[in-house]
Amino acid sequence: MSEAVNTLDGWYSLHLLYKVDWASFKLLEDSEKDVLINELKGFLAREEEVHQKNEGSYAFYNITGQKADLILWMLRPTIDELNALELEFNKLKVADFLIPAYSYVSIVELSSYLAKGSDGDPYENPFVRARLYPEVPKSKYICFYPMDKKRDLDDNWYMLSMEERSKLMYDHSKIGRSYAGKIKQFITGSQGLDEYEWGVTLFSDDMLEFKNIIYEMRFDEVSARYGVFGDFYVGVHLPDESLDAFFK
Amino acid sequence: MSEAVNTLDGWYSLHLLYKVDWASFKLLEDSEKDVLINELKGFLAREEEVHQKNEGSYAFYNITGQKADLILWMLRPTIDELNALELEFNKLKVADFLIPAYSYVSIVELSSYLAKGSDGDPYENPFVRARLYPEVPKSKYICFYPMDKKRDLDDNWYMLSMEERSKLMYDHSKIGRSYAGKIKQFITGSQGLDEYEWGVTLFSDDMLEFKNIIYEMRFDEVSARYGVFGDFYVGVHLPDESLDAFFK
Amino acid sequence: MSEAVNTLDGWYSLHLLYKVDWASFKLLEDSEKDVLINELKGFLAREEEVHQKNEGSYAFYNITGQKADLILWMLRPTIDELNALELEFNKLKVADFLIPAYSYVSIVELSSYLAKGSDGDPYENPFVRARLYPEVPKSKYICFYPMDKKRDLDDNWYMLSMEERSKLMYDHSKIGRSYAGKIKQFITGSQGLDEYEWGVTLFSDDMLEFKNIIYEMRFDEVSARYGVFGDFYVGVHLPDESLDAFFK
Amino acid sequence: MSEAVNTLDGWYSLHLLYKVDWASFKLLEDSEKDVLINELKGFLAREEEVHQKNEGSYAFYNITGQKADLILWMLRPTIDELNALELEFNKLKVADFLIPAYSYVSIVELSSYLAKGSDGDPYENPFVRARLYPEVPKSKYICFYPMDKKRDLDDNWYMLSMEERSKLMYDHSKIGRSYAGKIKQFITGSQGLDEYEWGVTLFSDDMLEFKNIIYEMRFDEVSARYGVFGDFYVGVHLPDESLDAFFK
Amino acid sequence: MSEAVNTLDGWYSLHLLYKVDWASFKLLEDSEKDVLINELKGFLAREEEVHQKNEGSYAFYNITGQKADLILWMLRPTIDELNALELEFNKLKVADFLIPAYSYVSIVELSSYLAKGSDGDPYENPFVRARLYPEVPKSKYICFYPMDKKRDLDDNWYMLSMEERSKLMYDHSKIGRSYAGKIKQFITGSQGLDEYEWGVTLFSDDMLEFKNIIYEMRFDEVSARYGVFGDFYVGVHLPDESLDAFFK
Repeated sequence: MSEAVNTLDGWYSLHLLYKVDWASFKLLEDSEKDVLINELKGFLAREEEVHQKNEGSYAFYNITGQKADLILWMLRPTIDELNALELEFNKLKVADFLIPAYSYVSIVELSSYLAKGSDGDPYENPFVRARLYPEVPKSKYICFYPMDKKRDLDDNWYMLSMEERSKLMYDHSKIGRSYAGKIKQFITGSQGLDEYEWGVTLFSDDMLEFKNIIYEMRFDEVSARYGVFGDFYVGVHLPDESLDAFFK
Repeated sequence: MSEAVNTLDGWYSLHLLYKVDWASFKLLEDSEKDVLINELKGFLAREEEVHQKNEGSYAFYNITGQKADLILWMLRPTIDELNALELEFNKLKVADFLIPAYSYVSIVELSSYLAKGSDGDPYENPFVRARLYPEVPKSKYICFYPMDKKRDLDDNWYMLSMEERSKLMYDHSKIGRSYAGKIKQFITGSQGLDEYEWGVTLFSDDMLEFKNIIYEMRFDEVSARYGVFGDFYVGVHLPDESLDAFFK
Repeated sequence: MSEAVNTLDGWYSLHLLYKVDWASFKLLEDSEKDVLINELKGFLAREEEVHQKNEGSYAFYNITGQKADLILWMLRPTIDELNALELEFNKLKVADFLIPAYSYVSIVELSSYLAKGSDGDPYENPFVRARLYPEVPKSKYICFYPMDKKRDLDDNWYMLSMEERSKLMYDHSKIGRSYAGKIKQFITGSQGLDEYEWGVTLFSDDMLEFKNIIYEMRFDEVSARYGVFGDFYVGVHLPDESLDAFFK
Repeated sequence: MSEAVNTLDGWYSLHLLYKVDWASFKLLEDSEKDVLINELKGFLAREEEVHQKNEGSYAFYNITGQKADLILWMLRPTIDELNALELEFNKLKVADFLIPAYSYVSIVELSSYLAKGSDGDPYENPFVRARLYPEVPKSKYICFYPMDKKRDLDDNWYMLSMEERSKLMYDHSKIGRSYAGKIKQFITGSQGLDEYEWGVTLFSDDMLEFKNIIYEMRFDEVSARYGVFGDFYVGVHLPDESLDAFFK
Repeated sequence: MSEAVNTLDGWYSLHLLYKVDWASFKLLEDSEKDVLINELKGFLAREEEVHQKNEGSYAFYNITGQKADLILWMLRPTIDELNALELEFNKLKVADFLIPAYSYVSIVELSSYLAKGSDGDPYENPFVRARLYPEVPKSKYICFYPMDKKRDLDDNWYMLSMEERSKLMYDHSKIGRSYAGKIKQFITGSQGLDEYEWGVTLFSDDMLEFKNIIYEMRFDEVSARYGVFGDFYVGVHLPDESLDAFFK
């Protein structure tokens, strides 16, 4: 048996992706569209309020390409809140014109590979807290993808010793750190919660940086040999003031 | 030929997962919704009655994320009863607004890896009986996933000797036992009955424990090398008193 | 080149699986339902007649779980008859409320691994004939699954010598024979006809026996190392007298 | 780098497979059905005319099982003609009741493994021409399947030397030749044009021969070790005079 | 860790593929069709204008086969423009009759394997600029496919040294160069942006050349051992003057 990694766990996380059923939406009168958009704005305003109070956070972006049109990412202290928020969102009028495209249930996670040994309760450490209960930025672009570590014959991450995994993760994290200031990265874990093992949510004001970091990391053994990637979703920030233009 | 494991088999089991067609459901009048919800409550009340008499058991939870909205898990002494219950459920009015998302046919199973040698008929042993004909709890959270043991070149569980498998399962079960009191675990077997070989249904009052146990087990050779996992479904208990809020 | 196995081939076979569109079906008046059910009964009565004359055979069962609701298995001397029967079934009124779920085209097959050397034309041997042109029983339960033999690097059934394959199949068939009296097994081959290479259709009055035989066989090298299994469909016999209860 | 095989290329090829939406089709009046069927007959008559003039060829069969109901195979000197024919077919009234099931774009191909060395331009050789610009027969049965050659670690067809590939293909073709007179075989290549690398379209007056040849070939190393097969579609010839019976 | 390749990155790229819902489209009056087609022509005219000013480029082709009917490829300096263009296209009236079939988000890419060492800023080199900000031709035929480099046990492109990869890519590119004049090739990278790692978009006036180049390359180690290919889409140019014929 290989030694399991310890994790620090923060807020619960729910990514919801939707396609817009434009053909149906266009049938609405402008006044009906206004009602829908205003109700959606109300939902997002409540998200913003929670975000301001640091009792949770969220992101709302317009996905490019046909896999989805919208991504709503929500973070909360409990799964009950996220479960209730999903139900509330499904009952919005606009949801009648949204087709579920992908969802992902997870928990913000900090793995012990990266945790510096330190005294005291890590959950009281302000640097740790800032990562476990993060303020999601409103950068121009988002990139979201789920991933696994491979378990295939000789390429089996989970059969490596803790020492081997720590060394590989250390090299891997150096690449990540070199993008500090260019990309903000959030890792959420979903072992036992969803299909993939982790979700990676990146934010940047330059979409090219998403390509750069993933490209560079792919030659690193952690990704090259052990990375199994789900679909990649990229999009553009959709602030309140752009919602009318988006829907109309 | 490798020696086959013996199993003790209990109640038949049927997991039914559904998505709610909210766009259609919202078109109903409140009075129509009441009729639907009350009919569903009647169905669940009969499940509860059977559960109270220990002639079967059940669970009803609200799944988080877009893979499904509802999971109904039913256990009975015969497949005929489950088959009839599925038909009855499909004929409920609410079923017109439910879209099948996943189902799983299996039988509660205790494998001989774990069975202590003992005198007498194990089916008369009260500890064994409690596991084969279980009272499903009403914990806050559920986690359900189907799984296989891998058969891939050098990673072939079924080509291992009974001795090797027993040793590996012993280590594996130690992790499981360390979660006693935190997680209630139910194993159902579906060889010859459904796509995967086993279903694992977990209950806990802390969803984080689902992540902890699956994470820890993934580094154990049984999972790391031989585990093939289907989709994970997690959800929140949906008691009778929450049904109105859920649907309206 | 490895020596190909010889087969004896009997009746053509067509498995048709359907889901019922209950939401639409419920909209029918009772009198309309009666018309549909009676027309279906007429179709099945003709199947029974052919079965009685041993000019073909059939089975009609209610599948448990969401993969399908109904399975219709038909056997005939020619593919033309099956093709015409499928068209006839699609034109039944009830077919407007059935959604195709899976189908499988094959031919009843006896492989030479198991054929005893004997004098004369095997197609005149009454024991062989009984297996090639079988009377399908009306047991309480059905289990149907398609399968392949694996062709993956070192686990390649088709690169084994005839001698190795014969030895492995001999061990494998011993397990099968130990279930005589408990399970009736029908093998149909579909090389060149459908996606998988074989279909296995089992009948029993105890569904647990399906789990027992598949479980036991999985530790046998033929299954453990070379078996690739499609989806498993299990169900309960749906005799004429239960059709009204099923549909209404 | 392994030496690439040379190919001789003939007519462009388009396989179109459709399911019939029977529930909608049945709603038509008989007179409306007549209009549809006659328009379809006109389309097929034009195909027959082109076929008679050897300016192309075609086949129209009724597929058995639920994967598709109809297969239309068309051959022409240019892709532009096929593209226009597909558009024309989609605009037939009957197409409103047909659901696309699978399509395959390719070119009739003769590989140099099999080409005898000969003087002169092979495109002037009448035997070669008969294979590159073939008259598709109207046999009772069709079998169509796409396939790849495997590229998986040690089982990589494209890493073999030309000498090894030629030897393997020679053995393989001997099996094919032994079915001369029983099966007519057409190979079309789709590297760069479609998902699979080749399509195989077989015709015979005995469907059992499809099973026999595929079964026998599966033990040959070219198939056993290097063959990757798509779905198999088999069907019964649907001549003009059967169209009314088929649709009504 | 293997040395990552450097890339030069040009315009952002968006491939959009759609199927036409002919059954619905045919219900329109001719005058309604005219409105739709004219609006689409306006959209394409704006694309042509941007193309003429070299502020972007585009292609519009009719895909052969059932995977899609139309491909719209658009190139722009920013993802924001492409995102807005996709939204604009979805709001065209014709879009109500188009069903999304596949999309692909990427960036025109030149990898350093092929970049000649040279002085100065490569982004100022006119030959490099012509490739990073390309004028898409209006050849008769298009071929588009996404692809990955394999990461599977011993066949792992990303674990090779830069030296090995450079040598392999050099041999590979020699094949590509031998098609100069026959095929125009555009490579776009999508690491971190979409499901596959690269998209290849080819143009030619002879569709057979697509088959020739892909066939020949498949025997080259880069493709044979390391190439993982998505679906191939081929089609015929759909100029403005053919739009009426296409839709009516």
